[in-house]
Amino acid sequence: MFNHLIDIERLSTEEISDIISTAQAFKKDTITSSAKGKTACLMFFENSTRTHCSFELAAKKLKMHVLNFDIGASSFSKGESIKDTFENLYFIGVDAVILRHSENKIIDRILENISYPLKFVNAGDGNCAHPTQALLDYMTMLEKIGSVEGKKIVIAGDVAHSRVAKSNLALLKKFGAEVHFCAPEYFMPENPEKFNVIWHDNLEEAISGADVVMLLRVQNERLDSETVKKCGNYSDKYKLSSEILNKYAPNAVLMHPGPVNREVEITSELLDSTKGVTILEQARNGLFVRMAVLNKMFGEKDE
Amino acid sequence: MFNHLIDIERLSTEEISDIISTAQAFKKDTITSSAKGKTACLMFFENSTRTHCSFELAAKKLKMHVLNFDIGASSFSKGESIKDTFENLYFIGVDAVILRHSENKIIDRILENISYPLKFVNAGDGNCAHPTQALLDYMTMLEKIGSVEGKKIVIAGDVAHSRVAKSNLALLKKFGAEVHFCAPEYFMPENPEKFNVIWHDNLEEAISGADVVMLLRVQNERLDSETVKKCGNYSDKYKLSSEILNKYAPNAVLMHPGPVNREVEITSELLDSTKGVTILEQARNGLFVRMAVLNKMFGEKDE
Amino acid sequence: MFNHLIDIERLSTEEISDIISTAQAFKKDTITSSAKGKTACLMFFENSTRTHCSFELAAKKLKMHVLNFDIGASSFSKGESIKDTFENLYFIGVDAVILRHSENKIIDRILENISYPLKFVNAGDGNCAHPTQALLDYMTMLEKIGSVEGKKIVIAGDVAHSRVAKSNLALLKKFGAEVHFCAPEYFMPENPEKFNVIWHDNLEEAISGADVVMLLRVQNERLDSETVKKCGNYSDKYKLSSEILNKYAPNAVLMHPGPVNREVEITSELLDSTKGVTILEQARNGLFVRMAVLNKMFGEKDE
Repeated sequence: MFNHLIDIERLSTEEISDIISTAQAFKKDTITSSAKGKTACLMFFENSTRTHCSFELAAKKLKMHVLNFDIGASSFSKGESIKDTFENLYFIGVDAVILRHSENKIIDRILENISYPLKFVNAGDGNCAHPTQALLDYMTMLEKIGSVEGKKIVIAGDVAHSRVAKSNLALLKKFGAEVHFCAPEYFMPENPEKFNVIWHDNLEEAISGADVVMLLRVQNERLDSETVKKCGNYSDKYKLSSEILNKYAPNAVLMHPGPVNREVEITSELLDSTKGVTILEQARNGLFVRMAVLNKMFGEKDE
Repeated sequence: MFNHLIDIERLSTEEISDIISTAQAFKKDTITSSAKGKTACLMFFENSTRTHCSFELAAKKLKMHVLNFDIGASSFSKGESIKDTFENLYFIGVDAVILRHSENKIIDRILENISYPLKFVNAGDGNCAHPTQALLDYMTMLEKIGSVEGKKIVIAGDVAHSRVAKSNLALLKKFGAEVHFCAPEYFMPENPEKFNVIWHDNLEEAISGADVVMLLRVQNERLDSETVKKCGNYSDKYKLSSEILNKYAPNAVLMHPGPVNREVEITSELLDSTKGVTILEQARNGLFVRMAVLNKMFGEKDE
Repeated sequence: MFNHLIDIERLSTEEISDIISTAQAFKKDTITSSAKGKTACLMFFENSTRTHCSFELAAKKLKMHVLNFDIGASSFSKGESIKDTFENLYFIGVDAVILRHSENKIIDRILENISYPLKFVNAGDGNCAHPTQALLDYMTMLEKIGSVEGKKIVIAGDVAHSRVAKSNLALLKKFGAEVHFCAPEYFMPENPEKFNVIWHDNLEEAISGADVVMLLRVQNERLDSETVKKCGNYSDKYKLSSEILNKYAPNAVLMHPGPVNREVEITSELLDSTKGVTILEQARNGLFVRMAVLNKMFGEKDE
């Protein structure tokens, strides 16, 4: 169905719905692998537990061969060009690269340089896109509220640095959701109006009557020291508790891409309540969405 | 049959005998995997060659999916809580975690924190327990001397720091062996009497008439500098040679959990003699014991 | 057919031709694995992308179990002897070790020390041998020019430090090729005459009328600082361009073991021309040659 998964913007609503259907079929165990015997190479240039494990297990459950490209021990340190590295991987026998990298739009840059049909899955690039996260979030929302059309979806936290927020926004708009962003000024991007969403800097106001509240993690590892100083107060105004959630959005689905900073963006008591279970269900759906994406890249027939 | 393997103390003699029977069946290749398609995640926070390779190969021979959790590259460095890390692993699709960690009783601490049925195998915690080592040692003893009941088993070396000694002691007592410990004072724990074994500080006396002599390795990496200074003399009094072994315990089975420090706790000539082969047979049995443990965790039917 | 692949010198021409036939059969997908269920352990003590990936994928496509021996986290750091490390790996269940190491003839040294039939494949030792590289280069030459007998094969670059050059020389001489080496004085070994080839220090002269031009990479990571200073001029005299190649050896097959240093030993325009594609075909053949080598080690019947 497609050769690369780079971002949400390049997928049609039909393609997205088709991925979700396939993911549901893997969840119900009513579909078999089209990718058996193909080779996936995981290249993670940034820290990750769950995304790495999730992709690796998805590929293994599809009976793919999996190579873990050990970054430190690689020829990258011998100064090889991007073109040569990836063309060689293709000729060595790799069919698809699952890539996480700190550089925005790195897969587009690679594709401009290589001349062979190596497939790519974006597992997160810079602060730009994280399409499988948006797909698993959408799958979870559909399970919880049936459809996102006309629903109020609030994404709260460090929006400026978040590829999760951007990929979710792109997807939710395609399906007609009413998307709100909630962030203090220091977590807002330079031109917030370009996102074409409703902005809030007050959490209670933002989540009022929301159908979904998706918290983002404060990504300390991406912040400069000045912002960290300001962030000291983040929790005072933006930490979500059961009390606030029940008061302003009692029926909202609570989501978070993880890993969670307890007592920073969310209280431990809320996370450990029944509301918090959806966050784990997101992780589960991640496995099935990634199996679906890889399966569709390797010749699954559309019905 | 069981959900976790944490220590020997919580296993009944029937359970232990059943694991050994299953291990023997894997050794004779008369049993197939009950764990096919299940996922094991190896998390080793301490150095290990043989235990890591042995568990990984055991899982792969059972046709399990294996994830190697790369500690440095994990979300542990993003400050995620133990509860969130392991609950997420479970939802991502991990069925069992094989854990080595420097903290005593870490699996109990994890189990107190998580709410989902993730299974755990202890691959060594602190100086506390190493149950699969004791099981493979027991399997080897049974092959060599039929039964341990009433037999004199001597464990010699750095008992204070040794989880191997503690797990072996727990197992051997369940089966009625007469256990002796041999150690210089600086390798004795603070209250040696609590172990309820016969203590020796003289090697010749300790091994006299022994049925099994199990040497421990001097674990330089766990010792403080003062003990290392004293240890300089360890070899003078405690290094076992063929001459000593043949004089005091000519029929004894020679064992060692490895890795061996040649010319520290054992002479090279003894290790390289026919007596030394049992140490390699222990390593071989390790594979089958670990296959048996994983198989029993995933629904092998008792006959 | 054989228990170890250590160097080219110990293979007969019949054995080499048989490996190439098997590699061609894997390329055409007309042969199945004889190594299914066997265990390969990859031990790479030096950087490598393509060789590591190629061997790992070869083993996985043969349905072998693969262990990646993590060097830093191993018992090597606990001071275990070579004999004990490898004998234990054998008893743990490893059938074959695929080893890359900076020490010349390390596999011979290991084999002198161990008493059990653990198999070894040399994936590169010091500046001594890289036999699978020579085999895949030979396979590629046969595809391009049918036979090497009487053909002019030029190997140009840092010959002194190159195990690739040495293994290729050994193989090409067995099959009657006319081998030429081209290198500046600082890349020549101490006694160049011992190689018994035709030496050149002028690139144009060396490649005149050649059937194959094989460039080597300048291995900055192996050079002392004085040589690096001299190397500054290497490109001026030895960088191969389309212009030079077309003038002096218009029909030559262009080869390089990779990774390539663009604009050091070769121009980007030549590498990216149709001539450069053979370099990628070498990488592809590497997979099939390594499958063939492993398959022959595990009981493939000769026809």
